[in-house]
Amino acid sequence: MQPKSSIVHLPVYQPGKSIEAVKRELGLERIIKLASNENPFGCSDKAKQAIQQEIENTSLYPDGAAVAVTEAVAKYLDVQPNQVIFGAGSDEIILMICRAFLVPGDEHIIADQTFPQYKHNADIEGAVTVEIPLRDGTHDLEAMLAAVNERTKIVWICNPNNPTGTIISQAELDRFMERVPGHVLVVLDEAYCEYVMDDSFPDSLKLISQYNNVISLRTFSKIYGLASLRIGYGIGHPDVIHLINQVREPFNTTRYAQAAALAAVEDQAFIADCREKNAAGIKYIEQQLERLQLTSFPAHGNFIMVDVGRPAVDMFDALLRRGIITRAGHKKYPNHLRITVGSQEQNEAMIQALESALAEYKVTS
Amino acid sequence: MQPKSSIVHLPVYQPGKSIEAVKRELGLERIIKLASNENPFGCSDKAKQAIQQEIENTSLYPDGAAVAVTEAVAKYLDVQPNQVIFGAGSDEIILMICRAFLVPGDEHIIADQTFPQYKHNADIEGAVTVEIPLRDGTHDLEAMLAAVNERTKIVWICNPNNPTGTIISQAELDRFMERVPGHVLVVLDEAYCEYVMDDSFPDSLKLISQYNNVISLRTFSKIYGLASLRIGYGIGHPDVIHLINQVREPFNTTRYAQAAALAAVEDQAFIADCREKNAAGIKYIEQQLERLQLTSFPAHGNFIMVDVGRPAVDMFDALLRRGIITRAGHKKYPNHLRITVGSQEQNEAMIQALESALAEYKVTS
Repeated sequence: MQPKSSIVHLPVYQPGKSIEAVKRELGLERIIKLASNENPFGCSDKAKQAIQQEIENTSLYPDGAAVAVTEAVAKYLDVQPNQVIFGAGSDEIILMICRAFLVPGDEHIIADQTFPQYKHNADIEGAVTVEIPLRDGTHDLEAMLAAVNERTKIVWICNPNNPTGTIISQAELDRFMERVPGHVLVVLDEAYCEYVMDDSFPDSLKLISQYNNVISLRTFSKIYGLASLRIGYGIGHPDVIHLINQVREPFNTTRYAQAAALAAVEDQAFIADCREKNAAGIKYIEQQLERLQLTSFPAHGNFIMVDVGRPAVDMFDALLRRGIITRAGHKKYPNHLRITVGSQEQNEAMIQALESALAEYKVTS
Repeated sequence: MQPKSSIVHLPVYQPGKSIEAVKRELGLERIIKLASNENPFGCSDKAKQAIQQEIENTSLYPDGAAVAVTEAVAKYLDVQPNQVIFGAGSDEIILMICRAFLVPGDEHIIADQTFPQYKHNADIEGAVTVEIPLRDGTHDLEAMLAAVNERTKIVWICNPNNPTGTIISQAELDRFMERVPGHVLVVLDEAYCEYVMDDSFPDSLKLISQYNNVISLRTFSKIYGLASLRIGYGIGHPDVIHLINQVREPFNTTRYAQAAALAAVEDQAFIADCREKNAAGIKYIEQQLERLQLTSFPAHGNFIMVDVGRPAVDMFDALLRRGIITRAGHKKYPNHLRITVGSQEQNEAMIQALESALAEYKVTS
C-alpha cells in the first residue's frame, strides 16, 4: 500500500493538555485550563435546552444541508443563505477549502506563526507553503501581497491571529484587497472576531459584498461556547460557497450541533456579556503583567501571548505544577506563552501562579 | 479562483427525504420514514444518559484522540487501541482513506451499485473508478480481482451491500484475500454487520489479524442508533490506522458522540434486541412481499431492496402520498425501492401502503 507521499511525514496536531490528563499525571485536584481558548462562561442556556430537546432524535440523521441553522445565521448576518456553509468546526471549512482548490504544486501564503491547520491541510494536498514573517506579531499584508504570483491559490489571514492575538485593520485589509489578484482566494479566519472591541477591526461582510474572492470563517467553538459540538461556518460569495460545498460530506455536522448553534446565535445577550467580561479580563491581566514586568502582544481575542523572558516550555511546566494549563511551543516565539482569558477567579489564580513561578525562577537561576 | 478540476461536476449527494420536508410538501400529519436505515427503536438509554451528562461540558473541546471510546471499542472487539480510528461517521473514514492513499491517476474498484461515497471521495482525489457489475445484486469478487492491476490502490466491498442488502461469504472473501496483491487496500464497509444473522458472514477481525491490507469500517449510525451524532470507526493493522490518522482533523468527533458511543458499545443487550426485532421484521416483510408477488434481494441489513415491477420513482411517489418515505433512484435497479425495516407497526403500515399503491397502479394502467 502506497500512501500519498505528502502525508507520510505530517506533524501530528498537539492539542492543549486536557484537565483529566494533568490531574492524572500530577495528582492535582484543582486544575484551571487556559490552553484551548474555550469560553470560561460556558454557553447559552438556550443552547443547552436545544441540546436537551434533541436527545429524543438521537437515532435520526441530521439535516445534511443544515437548512435551519444556515437560515438563522444568514438572517443574523444579513446575508443570503447560499453565502453560508457549515462545517464540523471552522477546521473542516479549512479542510474543504484546501480539498476544493489546491492541487500539487499550487502555492498558498500564510504567516510564519499562525493557526497550524492551514499548512496541515495544504500539505496533504501537496501544495507549497510560503511563510511570511509576522511583524510585531502582526500579519504583514504588504509582504504577503508581494509573495503572490500566478501559482498562488490562497492567502490565509487569521484575524485576530492565533496565537499572537493581534489584528490587522480595515484600512490595511482594504488596501490589500484592492491589489490582490482575483485568482487568489483570501481566507479571513475570524474565529475570535466576536471578542474584538477595536474600532479599526475590518467589517469582513462588507468586503464579501464587494469581492467574490474573499471568505470569512467563523466558529461556535469560542465565544459561543460550543467547542464540544464541532460547528463553524464560512461566509462568502455564492460561487465560492458552491465550490466548497462540492467537497462537503453529506452529513458533516451533527443534529445536536445544528440545534445548539441555532439557539446560540439567537441569544446575543449571552455573547455581549461574554465579550464584556473578556475585555475586563484582558485589562486585568495586562495590568498584572505590567506589574510583573512582562510584555505581551496587544490581545484582541480571548487569549494573551506573553513573553515570559525565558523558554516558555519551562514556564509552562512551572505553571502546570501549580495547576494552570497554558500553551507553549510556538516556533517563532519560544519565550511566549499563550494564555486563555478565563473568569476573574481563574485569571487571579493564573497571575498568582505566574508570580510564584517567576519568583521560583529567580531563586533557582 | 481555479478549483480542482475533479470537483466541479461532482454530483451532490441526495439524502433520504426528511420527515419535516414531506409533512410540509404534502400536508400530511403522520409520516413514516423508511429511507435512511435509521434504527426504529432509537438508541440505548445508557447512551442518552451519557449525552445528558455531557451538557455541562459543552464549551470544552472533545478529546481529539478519542482515547476512552477507542479503548472501549478495542476491548469489546478484542483488538489493540492502535488498530482503531474514529471518524464523524464511517463516511469520514472513507474520506480519510481516499485522502491518505489516492493520487490522480490511481485506480480504485467498486461495485456498480453500492454506497456512493467511495466514488465521490475518490473523484475528489482525481482517481479513476473501475465499476464491476453486481451479480444477482451481490459483489462479484472474482471479477473485482480480475480488474486489479498495478495502479489499483483500493477495492471497496460493502458487506452487506448498500442498497441491495446482499452479503459475500467468508469462503468467498478468504479466496479473494489469498490472491489480492498486498499493494491493494481492501476496505470492508460493514456498516450493517451487526444485523447479519447468516453464519456464512465473514469474520473480518480474523482477516485483519492475518492481513495488513484490510480494514473494516463500522458505524454507530445504524444498529447503535446514534446517526444524529456522526460517529463511526475503522479497524485495521496499526500501520494502516497510523497512515489514515495522519489526515484526521484534530477534533473530528464531538464530545457527545464519543460519550454516547462509549455507553452504547457497553450496552450489547440493546443491540441483541434490535437484531432480533429486525430479523422478525425482515421475515414479516418478505412474507408479505411474496403475498404481493414482489421479489426482493436477500436482506441481511436493516433494509430490503424490492423489485416493484415498474419505475421505482413512481412507486416512491405513490408511497410518499400515503405517508411512507422510501428510497428510489438506483441507476442499476430503476425498478427497485430500498425500504428500511421499521418497527412492526411501521412495517405493517408500509405493506398496507404498498398494497394500496399497487392496486392504484393496476386500476390506472
